[in-house]
Amino acid sequence: MAGSTTGTVFRVMTWGESHGKGIGVTVDGCPAGLPLEEADIQAYLDRRKPGQSKFTTARQEGDRVEILSGVFEGKTTGTPIAMMVRNTDQRSRDYSAIMNVYRPGHADYGFDQKYGFRDYRGGGRSSGRETLARVAAGAVAAKVLETFGVRIYAYTKSIGSIEIDRARFDPAVRDQNPLYMPDASAAAAADAFLEEMIAKQDSVGGVVECVISGVPAGVGEPVFDKLDACLAKAVMSIGAVKGFEIGDGFAAARALGSQNNDAFCIRKQPDDVTGSQAGQGEKKAFDRQCGRLDGIGKKTNHAGGILGGISDGSDIILRAAFKPTPSIAQTQYTVNRDGEETEIAIHGRHDPVIVPRAVVVVEAMAAMTVLDLMLVGRSARL
Amino acid sequence: MAGSTTGTVFRVMTWGESHGKGIGVTVDGCPAGLPLEEADIQAYLDRRKPGQSKFTTARQEGDRVEILSGVFEGKTTGTPIAMMVRNTDQRSRDYSAIMNVYRPGHADYGFDQKYGFRDYRGGGRSSGRETLARVAAGAVAAKVLETFGVRIYAYTKSIGSIEIDRARFDPAVRDQNPLYMPDASAAAAADAFLEEMIAKQDSVGGVVECVISGVPAGVGEPVFDKLDACLAKAVMSIGAVKGFEIGDGFAAARALGSQNNDAFCIRKQPDDVTGSQAGQGEKKAFDRQCGRLDGIGKKTNHAGGILGGISDGSDIILRAAFKPTPSIAQTQYTVNRDGEETEIAIHGRHDPVIVPRAVVVVEAMAAMTVLDLMLVGRSARL
Amino acid sequence: MAGSTTGTVFRVMTWGESHGKGIGVTVDGCPAGLPLEEADIQAYLDRRKPGQSKFTTARQEGDRVEILSGVFEGKTTGTPIAMMVRNTDQRSRDYSAIMNVYRPGHADYGFDQKYGFRDYRGGGRSSGRETLARVAAGAVAAKVLETFGVRIYAYTKSIGSIEIDRARFDPAVRDQNPLYMPDASAAAAADAFLEEMIAKQDSVGGVVECVISGVPAGVGEPVFDKLDACLAKAVMSIGAVKGFEIGDGFAAARALGSQNNDAFCIRKQPDDVTGSQAGQGEKKAFDRQCGRLDGIGKKTNHAGGILGGISDGSDIILRAAFKPTPSIAQTQYTVNRDGEETEIAIHGRHDPVIVPRAVVVVEAMAAMTVLDLMLVGRSARL
Amino acid sequence: MAGSTTGTVFRVMTWGESHGKGIGVTVDGCPAGLPLEEADIQAYLDRRKPGQSKFTTARQEGDRVEILSGVFEGKTTGTPIAMMVRNTDQRSRDYSAIMNVYRPGHADYGFDQKYGFRDYRGGGRSSGRETLARVAAGAVAAKVLETFGVRIYAYTKSIGSIEIDRARFDPAVRDQNPLYMPDASAAAAADAFLEEMIAKQDSVGGVVECVISGVPAGVGEPVFDKLDACLAKAVMSIGAVKGFEIGDGFAAARALGSQNNDAFCIRKQPDDVTGSQAGQGEKKAFDRQCGRLDGIGKKTNHAGGILGGISDGSDIILRAAFKPTPSIAQTQYTVNRDGEETEIAIHGRHDPVIVPRAVVVVEAMAAMTVLDLMLVGRSARL
Repeated sequence: MAGSTTGTVFRVMTWGESHGKGIGVTVDGCPAGLPLEEADIQAYLDRRKPGQSKFTTARQEGDRVEILSGVFEGKTTGTPIAMMVRNTDQRSRDYSAIMNVYRPGHADYGFDQKYGFRDYRGGGRSSGRETLARVAAGAVAAKVLETFGVRIYAYTKSIGSIEIDRARFDPAVRDQNPLYMPDASAAAAADAFLEEMIAKQDSVGGVVECVISGVPAGVGEPVFDKLDACLAKAVMSIGAVKGFEIGDGFAAARALGSQNNDAFCIRKQPDDVTGSQAGQGEKKAFDRQCGRLDGIGKKTNHAGGILGGISDGSDIILRAAFKPTPSIAQTQYTVNRDGEETEIAIHGRHDPVIVPRAVVVVEAMAAMTVLDLMLVGRSARL
Repeated sequence: MAGSTTGTVFRVMTWGESHGKGIGVTVDGCPAGLPLEEADIQAYLDRRKPGQSKFTTARQEGDRVEILSGVFEGKTTGTPIAMMVRNTDQRSRDYSAIMNVYRPGHADYGFDQKYGFRDYRGGGRSSGRETLARVAAGAVAAKVLETFGVRIYAYTKSIGSIEIDRARFDPAVRDQNPLYMPDASAAAAADAFLEEMIAKQDSVGGVVECVISGVPAGVGEPVFDKLDACLAKAVMSIGAVKGFEIGDGFAAARALGSQNNDAFCIRKQPDDVTGSQAGQGEKKAFDRQCGRLDGIGKKTNHAGGILGGISDGSDIILRAAFKPTPSIAQTQYTVNRDGEETEIAIHGRHDPVIVPRAVVVVEAMAAMTVLDLMLVGRSARL
Repeated sequence: MAGSTTGTVFRVMTWGESHGKGIGVTVDGCPAGLPLEEADIQAYLDRRKPGQSKFTTARQEGDRVEILSGVFEGKTTGTPIAMMVRNTDQRSRDYSAIMNVYRPGHADYGFDQKYGFRDYRGGGRSSGRETLARVAAGAVAAKVLETFGVRIYAYTKSIGSIEIDRARFDPAVRDQNPLYMPDASAAAAADAFLEEMIAKQDSVGGVVECVISGVPAGVGEPVFDKLDACLAKAVMSIGAVKGFEIGDGFAAARALGSQNNDAFCIRKQPDDVTGSQAGQGEKKAFDRQCGRLDGIGKKTNHAGGILGGISDGSDIILRAAFKPTPSIAQTQYTVNRDGEETEIAIHGRHDPVIVPRAVVVVEAMAAMTVLDLMLVGRSARL
Repeated sequence: MAGSTTGTVFRVMTWGESHGKGIGVTVDGCPAGLPLEEADIQAYLDRRKPGQSKFTTARQEGDRVEILSGVFEGKTTGTPIAMMVRNTDQRSRDYSAIMNVYRPGHADYGFDQKYGFRDYRGGGRSSGRETLARVAAGAVAAKVLETFGVRIYAYTKSIGSIEIDRARFDPAVRDQNPLYMPDASAAAAADAFLEEMIAKQDSVGGVVECVISGVPAGVGEPVFDKLDACLAKAVMSIGAVKGFEIGDGFAAARALGSQNNDAFCIRKQPDDVTGSQAGQGEKKAFDRQCGRLDGIGKKTNHAGGILGGISDGSDIILRAAFKPTPSIAQTQYTVNRDGEETEIAIHGRHDPVIVPRAVVVVEAMAAMTVLDLMLVGRSARL
């Protein structure tokens, strides 16, 4: 089926393999009139680009995006926006080690069972490189959302057991370290830990947290297309994500109702609520209250900005758990296509952690999802 | 938009409000030839019926399902299966306490912001009673899945901090206590804890775990419609769910790659792998290996049966975190429709925990999702 | 698949068989705030009710619609509107004549090939009675469209070779004869012709024409979801429709460009353009010019109100060709389920022509389609 | 919305403007294992290429297709197939004549009303050049259908009033004249007529007929997704199509039931039924009976191969009416963006008739539609 398509009104279809001709995406349904140029997309792509630090693959892709359609005289026309990044690093390689062997933690076996065979070059369609197309589409969505006053800010919350400290949280710090952690001290500790992982030929997982500010109350559809359900699907569809939370998430399962319910309140003055400045620089971003133009807010935000699947005007807070990079150089037990047990050691440079480069992917998926539901919601009333 | 519709091939549309004429669902796309009768649906509905224990609302609904179409001479015809449960408990009530006040933890405020007004009787469309329609559709899906050799078994994993002990896990015990816990000892402890909650006019959250056995490798679509992504959306769309995990979930974010990767293996003999007996009675259900007809399995199952969004033939294991019941009798601060701060105390009998009655809802959502992707997958190859 | 579902934002799912428990429909995505009551729906249903004249089946169904959800305090809530009509005329009958024999001109054989068996009672799902659900949904759509200033008016254009004369066209006359012809003289001639058909145990086809007024320019999506393409699908999905035209239709295939192009013009005064009074009483409805609030119109309307798949502000004019009623009492050659040649004569009262009762069905399908695209179009611009 | 996307399982999204960087399409949902190379696509594209005769625009596009993804080692992988044709003829031009003036018969005015502005270069997204993407996707669909034994053969049935004569019908002749008429004599007459049109700076319409052979009985979904309804939408979505017929089409509206019903029959010997050789060279293609592997056929085919929206195993026969090319050099009255009446004469070379180049587009749309419904139909039974 059409598993590479998502969205109802803001519809996105992606294509491409890791070592094919390129990666691309078409956005069908972007509203007309948005100023858009390649630099808008490129800025997002650069955040997931490989080769930027000692912790990312050395693959030297220019990853230059080309807008092929849908923009005229600097503005979106309402017709499909096609974007493409050519793969420039397609050296002929020796894939004999993986073409017939199922890499643990990868989709190789599932693809073969599903389709009868697979493009084994660098993971083919199941490569993390596929997320490049998501980021390009997400960059468009994020720019539309900006015109609606919605901002999305994600960051690395933890790598292995090293977690950012809310007391040291500084949004501006995120872009000052290659791990995208908004806490310089945690970033330094994680950096050392990852050096250790590389030395041990091992890898580690982590958590991305994402704050979406400025979404008005009333976004999300009842029952199946709840805002949190759509966000969950969008984020879980990123390879390697194994868990998803909104607001207090699993902690809510241990809480009492009297603690977990957020009391509604009336904001007394504009600046006693800090919700709309998420990621703008202040530490309060964590324990913020929410605020709405109509003056109704909540005293706490255990709900993470969504009640009954519909936004309540508070900041939307979500988390995604990423598993460790499955490609490791250690020898692992596995099976080959002939049904024989064998061993595999995946050489070549692989990121010891997926999370830092996934931060912008989470933002992109969140942007697409929120925008689609906001557009869909335009028909909620006569 | 059409937020009450889900599925691509096995498509489901639900309708109904808590205190309207009834709750219903139409299943469009069920394959022809399935033996089906009202008793098949009723058996599922009875598992979420109110009034069954001291921990569920006293509402006395017969909740008798009627199949209105799509079945002829005892078999599905391939055309839409409409099902309805009439609301029999529609006593005229005094809703003045909630019609103008936003209950904390509920969708009241979001609905008003979205639609301009809302059916405030018992929560209207956002009532948990809406899940009745999901369960009816899920019962049909589960019966189709049975013919494919797929079984779904969910249970209460924890209530508050009281969690089942894997060493005492006994699937058969699940249906012997009103909390649907497969561990009699934990069920007894939770029972006592819930008595305490009732006395304190408070509520608590919990976790449902679900095991899906017998799904062949190759189910799920790459990129956006990954099996785990679709399951996440389906489960997160159940009201009150705040977190979702596949396999090791958030624990994977703290793991090393060398621990988290599951080694593929060849099964030596049919019975050295217990994956296909999930929920059939043995404790090994927790730490099972997986097995496939073609003999390829995995030595562990940290992945929870899904790699790269595609089933790997192992048991699929997922968890959903439910927040505490938001309706509590304690006085809470809130706001009314006129934008004034006020207080509310929600009287009447409310379940002190949502989880036990949600167990079958999780099964239903999982069944619809897996079936839809299995049917969609019929077109994966020529 | 889900062939009983249609629409993107205004989504409709129907169910039911001719001799099952009833016929129903759920509308998921109707905007909130529309005043709606059962009488609104019933007025539409009554236009397709059997037993109203000598030319319709004698089946005595009350065909009373019940709104089951989605309306609160007299207004739509934005949540699914479920509607149902119980079948009251379900006498046990002798179906042995048709259960194993394929009726010529019917879907019996196709259903058996598709599903392996079929509900043969009165045609089951493929019965014309299925259109009742379309009409109920269309009635809701039409009422929403009224609030947008859009009116839909269909009528019988021809029965066999008897066609209305434009010179005698009078919209008010349509509802004064059971054939729904807006020309009393043609109606009388058709009446006599149908008497002859009944005597000869034969049937005849005809054409329905439909005028949609008040649609602003800019409705319809480029490429695949053009307004005329969506209307074509909607109308062709009515059983027995074999042809569809917009504007000049097949006549355009014989025209020259210099004749067929409609010149754009500026309206000099409000009443020199009569486009917006379609069906309001004047003969000019046929050869009308179009007019738009912004003053741009067309001097002619060969295009039928749609250019490049997008409305141009003129009246939208479409036609549907209906084949003769396939059920006739004459003996016909056919084949049975055992693959043997046999004969069949379909007794019982059948309408000698489908068209009059289909007029409101065409209106209903047009209404759903135009509304869905108008709602979808709300996202065309920022 | 997403109007450039179509299909449920075989999903197609197109992009591109007439004078932008190129035209492209992504096919998401093509089954894995189909041998496919660029030459397969190119053969279809060459049939709609401009510059091939005196009746087509002189635009010299190479129109070379590039497959960007989804094919590995010569076979489709089941993942999205992206294809692109770069526009090579993008000379800077003077568009001042059309950028502010609404061309009669074109979508200019509707686009401006919908989106606020438009890419006016050569019609932008509404250009006939957009069909290139449809043909590329259709070529893939047609190749899949071949493996199912389904063939699609379309041709020019008429240009203006000049129609092919069934007695002279020869499928092989179609590709021997630039008008794609399977009757050499009619082609010669049409050729002369078109010369006259060119001299008069005028244009003319025509009809394309399409025969789809080899579709088994049982394809198409009841109610809204009937096979004929889906074909109608697909074909009507081609720019300039104003009418659509299945089988006898509008003639059925004048027929009697006793004439129009096709009697079912049993085929006596394999070769007494010629239905499966449509377009293979014999004249009988017109008046053929149908045949099925199970031996059930029809003595006539007024139905055009579809009963109740479901294929009956006979040849599927459809027709599309194309209006005259709206771009003509004669002076026409119109209006400009400032709301002033003005005149326009569209210079440059334009085809005097759209039909010949549209023949392959009709085949492409038919192929996509039939394939999608055949894949969807794989879930009709358990």
